[in-house]
Amino acid sequence: MNVTFYVRREEQAELLHVEGVCRINQDGSEGVFYANATTKIEDTSLEALWIAAVKYAGLRELLSDMKKVHETHPVLFVQNGIGHIELVHGTTLLDIAFATVEHGAQRIDDRTVKHNGVGMITIAAARGDGRLFERIGQANSKSFPITFHSDSEQILMRKVLINCMINPLTAILGIKNGDLLTDEYCLLLFNCLYDELTAAFPEIRSSLPYEAVEDVCRRTACNQSSMLADRLAGRPMEIETIVSAIIRKANGREKSLPLLTTLETMLYALDGKGVGL
Amino acid sequence: MNVTFYVRREEQAELLHVEGVCRINQDGSEGVFYANATTKIEDTSLEALWIAAVKYAGLRELLSDMKKVHETHPVLFVQNGIGHIELVHGTTLLDIAFATVEHGAQRIDDRTVKHNGVGMITIAAARGDGRLFERIGQANSKSFPITFHSDSEQILMRKVLINCMINPLTAILGIKNGDLLTDEYCLLLFNCLYDELTAAFPEIRSSLPYEAVEDVCRRTACNQSSMLADRLAGRPMEIETIVSAIIRKANGREKSLPLLTTLETMLYALDGKGVGL
Repeated sequence: MNVTFYVRREEQAELLHVEGVCRINQDGSEGVFYANATTKIEDTSLEALWIAAVKYAGLRELLSDMKKVHETHPVLFVQNGIGHIELVHGTTLLDIAFATVEHGAQRIDDRTVKHNGVGMITIAAARGDGRLFERIGQANSKSFPITFHSDSEQILMRKVLINCMINPLTAILGIKNGDLLTDEYCLLLFNCLYDELTAAFPEIRSSLPYEAVEDVCRRTACNQSSMLADRLAGRPMEIETIVSAIIRKANGREKSLPLLTTLETMLYALDGKGVGL
Repeated sequence: MNVTFYVRREEQAELLHVEGVCRINQDGSEGVFYANATTKIEDTSLEALWIAAVKYAGLRELLSDMKKVHETHPVLFVQNGIGHIELVHGTTLLDIAFATVEHGAQRIDDRTVKHNGVGMITIAAARGDGRLFERIGQANSKSFPITFHSDSEQILMRKVLINCMINPLTAILGIKNGDLLTDEYCLLLFNCLYDELTAAFPEIRSSLPYEAVEDVCRRTACNQSSMLADRLAGRPMEIETIVSAIIRKANGREKSLPLLTTLETMLYALDGKGVGL
């Protein structure tokens, strides 16, 4: 497939265009993938399928950029959390899909990504002609598995609840995902979060049994969660779209999430301050 | 007054005996105070007033050492927390007093202490002849204020509740005491702890109004709490005698302390692991 990156900085567009995207594989080998790149949205294709891969915090600006040129292309949104659902539904885009991405991936620099583990990409159309997204399925392989789902809300909720159980605790305590299961005190907090969240969202129990969250921790045992990685790098953590959005959703059902609410406040206290004194 | 240090390590006894105690004052000046020091409890005086200044974790061993030689000397206990009250009352010591120490002090090495701020020493006799402790009052001065109180339980509870409000949050979040008041999210957690603790121990409200805890944070704004200092140095934190003992006391009154209990679990998860990954 012919790919164009629409990026903000000229410097990154130049780098991607000239040197290509570099992927560091799990075995240490590297692969380079050449692609187009531009900072001018007018230079992008009207027919292309878009994959909006900015963080939630950058999405509002991207949607407003898109609105200036054309809103007829199908767009797949791959943000963490659930804060973007409302934003995206508020647009006049014709064809929308959401996806959850379970690959372990870490941005190294403007053109390099480290692949830390194979995971599922699950895509669900949410508005318009869902068939427009089916061509992404052509990329499906054992090392890049792609599945389609009928309910975008359900796949995003499942993913964000997993994130709520893993990200805040690992970010606050400065631990790797696997420590949640192996340290007896972390496990206490982890179990308490599972009970609290499944009490507020009981419909998730069938698609997210306890064993499934345990399994995510085990498969990503040596990884830093995205929130911890953000904290260690002094970047803002995605608290709003992962944690606060879930607390609001629970409150809307007259359910409180006392532990998650405490973790939310701690995360905001830590946000953007790095680690240590 | 003629002072003898009873210490565990020969190396420290030697150092104290030869070079004396060095105190670094707040203005950067230093003062040296010569004293006796020994590792042999048999060499200590039968008549002396003892000040037991080990941490709670070391107290059981010290009490058992004392029991071997003589239990007739008056002993003043200056531990943090409340875990030691039961231990001390379980001895056959004749004359017992407890004190809270509000000086800011930081151990630099085996003979050097940094004085970070003047604070009150409050002494309350708990068993036997309280007059035996009055001679400590001779040391009272503006820069070393000493007061006497009638109720040891009350002064220890007041101090440990202040510690419960300051130590866990500062240790977990890696912040200085003053940040509890200046960061809006820290303040939310701090206020929640005050409400939770005074709901469980309403009798403390008169001796510990909210303004008094605020005042402690303000006076020690630039200090690391003892728990944070322990965490940063990789030493065990005094979770048991400060936090767990208060949770048990509240539970004994059929009161729960949900926020403090969450902090307790986090502290145990962090304990002895240093900071960062």
